[in-house]
Order: sequence, then C-alpha cells, then structure tokens
Amino acid sequence: MENSICEIVGCQYLEMIMISGDNLSLWNDTPTKSAIVGYVHAVTDPNNAKFVPEVERVATFDNDGTLWLEKPLYMQLHHLIRQIGLVAASNPAVRIKQPFKAVYENDQAWFKEAAAGVSKGDLAKAMSIIAGAAEALEGMTIDEFNSNARDFLTNTKDARFNVPYKQLTYKPMVELIHYLQNNEFAVYITSGGGRDFMRSVSEEIYSTPRQNVIGSDIEYAYEIDTRSRAQVVRTVKVEQPIDNESGKPIHIGRTISRRPIFAAGNSDGDIEMLQYAKSHTGLSLGVLVHHDDADREYAYDEGAEEALERAVGNGWVVVSMKNDWKQIF
Amino acid sequence: MENSICEIVGCQYLEMIMISGDNLSLWNDTPTKSAIVGYVHAVTDPNNAKFVPEVERVATFDNDGTLWLEKPLYMQLHHLIRQIGLVAASNPAVRIKQPFKAVYENDQAWFKEAAAGVSKGDLAKAMSIIAGAAEALEGMTIDEFNSNARDFLTNTKDARFNVPYKQLTYKPMVELIHYLQNNEFAVYITSGGGRDFMRSVSEEIYSTPRQNVIGSDIEYAYEIDTRSRAQVVRTVKVEQPIDNESGKPIHIGRTISRRPIFAAGNSDGDIEMLQYAKSHTGLSLGVLVHHDDADREYAYDEGAEEALERAVGNGWVVVSMKNDWKQIF
Repeated sequence: MENSICEIVGCQYLEMIMISGDNLSLWNDTPTKSAIVGYVHAVTDPNNAKFVPEVERVATFDNDGTLWLEKPLYMQLHHLIRQIGLVAASNPAVRIKQPFKAVYENDQAWFKEAAAGVSKGDLAKAMSIIAGAAEALEGMTIDEFNSNARDFLTNTKDARFNVPYKQLTYKPMVELIHYLQNNEFAVYITSGGGRDFMRSVSEEIYSTPRQNVIGSDIEYAYEIDTRSRAQVVRTVKVEQPIDNESGKPIHIGRTISRRPIFAAGNSDGDIEMLQYAKSHTGLSLGVLVHHDDADREYAYDEGAEEALERAVGNGWVVVSMKNDWKQIF
Repeated sequence: MENSICEIVGCQYLEMIMISGDNLSLWNDTPTKSAIVGYVHAVTDPNNAKFVPEVERVATFDNDGTLWLEKPLYMQLHHLIRQIGLVAASNPAVRIKQPFKAVYENDQAWFKEAAAGVSKGDLAKAMSIIAGAAEALEGMTIDEFNSNARDFLTNTKDARFNVPYKQLTYKPMVELIHYLQNNEFAVYITSGGGRDFMRSVSEEIYSTPRQNVIGSDIEYAYEIDTRSRAQVVRTVKVEQPIDNESGKPIHIGRTISRRPIFAAGNSDGDIEMLQYAKSHTGLSLGVLVHHDDADREYAYDEGAEEALERAVGNGWVVVSMKNDWKQIF
C-alpha cells in the first residue's frame, strides 16, 4: 500500500504525513489514513504536479452506511413508519388499508413478509410502505417536513445504542468531511435516501449546508394556502431518477456541473459515483467504508459485494471500521 | 415611496442610506435605490427588529431580462440555432428535416412562421426548434456543453450592441448581486432558460458559483464511453417542471430548501417566485425590472403586464431602467 501512495503522490509526502497526524485524530495510523492524507496533500500543494485548483475540489459522500448508521433499518424508513403510525392514530378511516393497518396494529408478520419480499424481488408490500408514507406526508410544506424530520432524528433513540439517531454518525467520517472542507473542498452529501430528511440536520451534524445535500425525494407542488401564503408542498410522486447507482452521477452533474475528485461510499449503489470520480482527468480518490466491526457497529458485506470486489482493480481505498477507526460514534 | 420605507425599516435608516450611496454606485439616488439599501440595512443589522440571520438570507434572481439582455431573441435560442446549423453543416442527412433544413438554408420565412405560431399558441414549429437543438446536443458531456456554451457567449456578438453576449449583463444588477453577497446573502440565479448554459459563465460574469444557478434543462444519462470513462451526457428529454411560473418556487425549494427573502424578476414568469419570497415570515423584498429604456436597451411591457399590475398591490419595487440606472451595460 505505501509503495503505491509513494508512486501516486510523490514520496516526499510520506514524511509530511507523519507530522500531520492531527488532521484525522480519530483515525489510526494505518495505510488507509496515509492514503487519504497523502492524497489531500498532493492535490492542495501548488508545487505538486497533481495540484487541483480550489474550484475543482469537489468531494461527494454517500450517507446511509457511509456517514451514519444504516442497520438494522434505514433511519428514514423508521421515520416513514412513524409518520404512517401518526396518521393512522389520528384518522381511523385510513386503518382499513395497508400499510396503515399493519403499522397501527403493530403487525410484525406483515413487515416480515414485506422484508422477505424485498429479498425475493417482490416489492409490492415494500412499495406500499413508501406509498403510504408519501400519503402521510402529502401537502406538508418544506419547513414543516424539515421540523418533523429534525424532531424525529433528535428525539428517537436507536434500540441498540440507546442514543438519538442524529448522534449515530461515524465521527471519523465527520472529521474527514471537516478535513476536506478545511482544505477548500466543496463537500456534498449524496444519498439514495431522502434529501430533505438529511437536510433537516446536515448543518448541525456535518457542517454541510442544506443546498450541498443531494438525494432522492418526492416531487413538489406550488400552492396558495388558506391564509393566502405561497407554499411549496410535498406530493405523492417520487422524483426520477432516484439518487442511487447511475442516478448518483446524474444528480451530481445536475446539481454541481463538476465531476468530483473525491468520492466515498459503502455499497454497490455507490459504484457509479466512484467510477465517475475515478474518471476525472485529475488525480482522484475513491473511498469505500467496509462494515467489519460487529462489536462496535455491524459486520456485513451484503449489498456491497461488487463494490468490494471492484475496489481492488480500481484502487479505491477500503476503510476498515475495525482497524482504521479509533472510535465510531 | 419614502414614507413606506420609513415605516417598514425604521426611519433611522433613511439617514444611513444617504451616507452609503457607494454601495450601489451605478444606481441613481432615487426611491428605488433607497428601498433596496434600506431593506438590506434592516435585515443585516442585529439591532433592527427585522434582522434576519445569515443562514436565512437567500436571494433569487431571474436571468433573461433581469440580469442580461433577452431581446430581440433569447441568447440561448440563438445558441441552439447555431448548434443546429453546425450539425446541419456537417451532416447532410439531417437537412431533409426541420428545423435543420430551415437553419441550413437560412429560411427566414420558416422562422417568421415559427415566431408567429408562438403568439397564436401554435407551438409546433417552435417546439421543433427545441427538439432539433436537443438532438444536435444529444450525447454531449457536461464539460463539453460547458465549453460549447462559454465559447458561444464569449465569441458571438449581439447585432445591435456589437459586443459579445456575455458582456450584455445589466451592470447595476451585477452590482446588486455583489452588494447582497457582501452582506452575506446566498445569491441564486433561477431562470426559465438553460441552467447549464448560464453555468458556463456564471462564475465569470456574476461571481456566482455554478451550483447556485438553477434553471430548466434537459435530462441527463450516465454512460461509459469508448475510452472506458464514466460520463454524464445530455439526452433529448426536457426535465420537468421547467423553471418558470410555479416551477420557480418548486426548483428553489428543491435546490435550497429555504424560502428567499429577496427575489428579482422582470416578467409574468417570475410572479410565483416573487409571491413565494413575499410569503416569508420575515421582512422580504421583491424587485421587478421594468424595460422602459428604448434608447439604451429596449422598451416593452409585453409578457410582464400582470407582474407590473401586481407590483403595486404587493409592494414590489419596480426598477426603471431609464431612471434608476446610471448605465446599463
């Protein structure tokens, strides 16, 4: 590993890396950290042949499983189910249909079937959760949704770790975001999950402004409300394409109009984004977070098999949560 | 006019405005300028009851006719026609169909019919220009389109003013953008016209980063090119909704997740954006640029009749290009 860094960024940097350990204080002194710090030094040093001007320093991070916990359930799915439950509790009429009925009756068997359907490619029940949530959130303004999501992430605790969801970010990754921002990278978060869900806390937990958060979301509509105020409200239709797989570089192109030189993900849905960064004409770095720490988080390769395999041939840096991070949360 | 500013922002500001004239040096000392400067002072002074924190200071500007020339033809339409001509010149096969035939043969009668159709609501020919342009640009990467558009705006001269298009921005409006940026406003440009067309020069001519430019555009696709590089390329399908009328607040909501407190436009397509800003719970300002200077630019109310009428009831500040601006280009 050290040989290849030496080759890529120039061997004089290896020495510099030794004295700059404080930049990523939550990372162990492993080749992974050297690769990241060596890369950042190379592209930010005007005397290095690999120097990249500030305006082109774009970094994109996946969110679920890359910046925050995604097991046992995506936080957003938990939020949607809660919202369905709130509507079912206040409106008996919706309880005759799914998924309102299942949530209201806490019908675990129905949810197990939905989960089993996902793995068998039978998405009907899973899609009904999305559709039910869209219905439960329909007509909500941007500000209302923002408060609702922030409230959920602030006040709902994870069952295993017993702290609010918004504290379950991977602190070494948050430190990496700040390190890049301090080196004049424009950092974007780009997730298959809900854009506005993440935006509700992105400024607080990642120091990343709302407009730098890209993601999938519902379409909006414009309307004048009963108090004659102009509002932008949620519809029930999902915006296309969703921000996953090939949708990631498409959303990145649309939003930024620049190709990232740095990209970080953790699953097969991030492959296209990592490829897109790798195809930059300048020196780029791809990072893949590997969930291999069952004690402190979870250990799973499921959904990341292809990404892990491609990491080798593509030179993506694989981060071992177990070996590379001093702490996780 | 001065009474109402006094009422809104506090009379102590009128005095301050007198000594801060340099902020908008290309603007005459009229009530229009006082209204704008008085507004900015009010929302940026922590001791003023109308103070708005930096993070909420969002300003949105329409582009065509608000920041740069839109007559006699939208610059972008000129660009699309040029692109159709380039394809027609190099590929005889396309010349059998419209609009390639008309552009190649410089068939002015065909274009006149297309223009006449627009005013009669018969959009078939006009739409064929858009479709032809989409075909002419299909498969182009984001970077290629960016270079192509920048080249056009840099090297194509306007027939009347005999300078390159990118110089035909309204300098008092560019000064206003900088004034707001200096007062910690996040400035966005939001146009019915092409997002990536404007982005090709936005950093140079408006000091506004690409990602702060919102607009209509074509959908993108992801592909691996013949040299195995990952690319994001243009398709022929127009992204919905286009960024005009109710599409403007929708695009603003999607991109920023915050409601603007300052919005500037010049036509009926900007009404919903101006309404959206006006419905901010904090003090907001709407600005409407009125084209009333046939000598130095153009004089026309066409397409802005309703906006001009609503300006009165809504308290939008109407900018007279003739009386309020010392210079235009």
